[in-house]
Amino acid sequence: MRDVCVIGLGLIGGSLLRAAAAVGRTTWGATTSEVDADAASRAGYDVTTDVGAALRRAAEAEALVVLAVPLTATNEVLKQVAEHAPHCLLTDVTSVKGPVGAAVRRIVPWARYVGGHPMAGTAESGWTASDAALFGGAAWVVCVEEDTDLTVWTDVAHLVLDLGAHVVPLPALSHDETVARISHLPHLLAAVLATIGAQGGPLAMTLAAGSYTDGTRVAGTNPELVRAMTEGNREALLPILDEALGRLGATRGSLASTGGLAATINAGHAGAQALADNRDLPRSGVQVSLTAPDAREGLISLGERGGRITSFDGDTAVGEVN
Amino acid sequence: MRDVCVIGLGLIGGSLLRAAAAVGRTTWGATTSEVDADAASRAGYDVTTDVGAALRRAAEAEALVVLAVPLTATNEVLKQVAEHAPHCLLTDVTSVKGPVGAAVRRIVPWARYVGGHPMAGTAESGWTASDAALFGGAAWVVCVEEDTDLTVWTDVAHLVLDLGAHVVPLPALSHDETVARISHLPHLLAAVLATIGAQGGPLAMTLAAGSYTDGTRVAGTNPELVRAMTEGNREALLPILDEALGRLGATRGSLASTGGLAATINAGHAGAQALADNRDLPRSGVQVSLTAPDAREGLISLGERGGRITSFDGDTAVGEVN
Repeated sequence: MRDVCVIGLGLIGGSLLRAAAAVGRTTWGATTSEVDADAASRAGYDVTTDVGAALRRAAEAEALVVLAVPLTATNEVLKQVAEHAPHCLLTDVTSVKGPVGAAVRRIVPWARYVGGHPMAGTAESGWTASDAALFGGAAWVVCVEEDTDLTVWTDVAHLVLDLGAHVVPLPALSHDETVARISHLPHLLAAVLATIGAQGGPLAMTLAAGSYTDGTRVAGTNPELVRAMTEGNREALLPILDEALGRLGATRGSLASTGGLAATINAGHAGAQALADNRDLPRSGVQVSLTAPDAREGLISLGERGGRITSFDGDTAVGEVN
Repeated sequence: MRDVCVIGLGLIGGSLLRAAAAVGRTTWGATTSEVDADAASRAGYDVTTDVGAALRRAAEAEALVVLAVPLTATNEVLKQVAEHAPHCLLTDVTSVKGPVGAAVRRIVPWARYVGGHPMAGTAESGWTASDAALFGGAAWVVCVEEDTDLTVWTDVAHLVLDLGAHVVPLPALSHDETVARISHLPHLLAAVLATIGAQGGPLAMTLAAGSYTDGTRVAGTNPELVRAMTEGNREALLPILDEALGRLGATRGSLASTGGLAATINAGHAGAQALADNRDLPRSGVQVSLTAPDAREGLISLGERGGRITSFDGDTAVGEVN
């Protein structure tokens, strides 16, 4: 089991450090936040505010370095990686993959990098919100491109499985388009709804029930984190916002003209059913040999069909698909 | 304690029958659904499929009649009220108040009607989903207009408190504008989001996490019920949809031009805080004497400030406001 060096100890980085230590990995972490470093040290973890020292140790130990800093801090930390551990095994947990991959190629071209993104979180943030169980049952995208080094990919995927998540292999572009749809659009719709609700004053807040509290919950997330992920995924998010505007405009037009909303509401109901089906319907087993010449294509195909990898049997990735 | 006759025994009507019986009221119900009638009878309730007979009994007993049928069935049931109990004490639980009030004035002009709407529900429907505890702690709008008969209003308000809810006194127009904002818009945004998410196929459903499942939950509601409430509140809903389109369009424009989303996201965060404040901040006590000449104005003012009535002390409504 490869050692793990976590840079950034907020909700995701802190949870990762806890969960990796819990399965017996040798772990250490670094954060520029004195508050988080103190709290993590007091909780018994090997943590420093000297990011360079943590990275040099990672280079010596051939550890897997996990960048768990906000997207806006990525370039700064990558420069430190270039200085202290330029050839390290590297992954990250940020919510956009295309822009981070481009930054890695530019700033640390010799790093053996495979991007990742756990689909888990809460509206809270910081080390105090971290939890070793955060990733249990979650989907964790581990990027595969045509030129991905599958030995690095396998190292990252093993860590993901150790943390209790399952692996979804995907190209960065597929990831970014999909999270625009199922994560970044929900955050922006929640913000719009929370704004319009609050404009109704205390009366609106008093009458607000389940549909409103559910629909606005993620509007309570730290605004800096939401800005970083949505603004950082601009290219993929714009067409999704256009789709939302088109559908909402059609809804408005239909209500104004015929007065009927069946098209909007029935499509939404079918969409809710698709989510339930994906969760509830039986899945079939799937295997991808990592030594096959078309291993990358096999992994990407599995991910793009909504499949996931749940274990390894030697050089074979074992998974399931609906 | 006045007897209660419930017409319609789905989620809301069934829960109301259960909760009113549980506090010792004499209750009976009627539904045209053989399935719901059988289930309610087997559960020990006094239920018939003969709506006319239930209404005649209500007229004889001076019972409070509660219409708990879908909005689309309201006119049909009001005709039966006009035939069998034209002077009865009447309330309803439907999700729009202006159109129902107008239908009552047209079809049963002699009924002593005060409209109501409990802000409670689940994504399920029908008698099998009903629950005597459904209304515990919920806001329940009981309409007050300039010409409202306060003795009828008080009868309805006492029932609401008996059911475990608190009373929000409001004119129909304020109710309809506010539910467009905090209930009907959330349902339509959830439908749009669930449609766009599902268009991402199994991959999108596999990556969907909390922001998506929260944002789409009410898209699973019975489409007929969602259509009835949104289409039935057309006049109040159109300007709210325009507000949503305007804000989402500004979000899109900002992302496309400057790339910044601070305005949208910060406003949404402030909105989420407003909801939390309304729930958590201390409230002050308030009293409205129902025998005062300006009692109706006092009730409306309380409701429009986001206040609620939680008990009665003789002829005085006792409540609280933030």
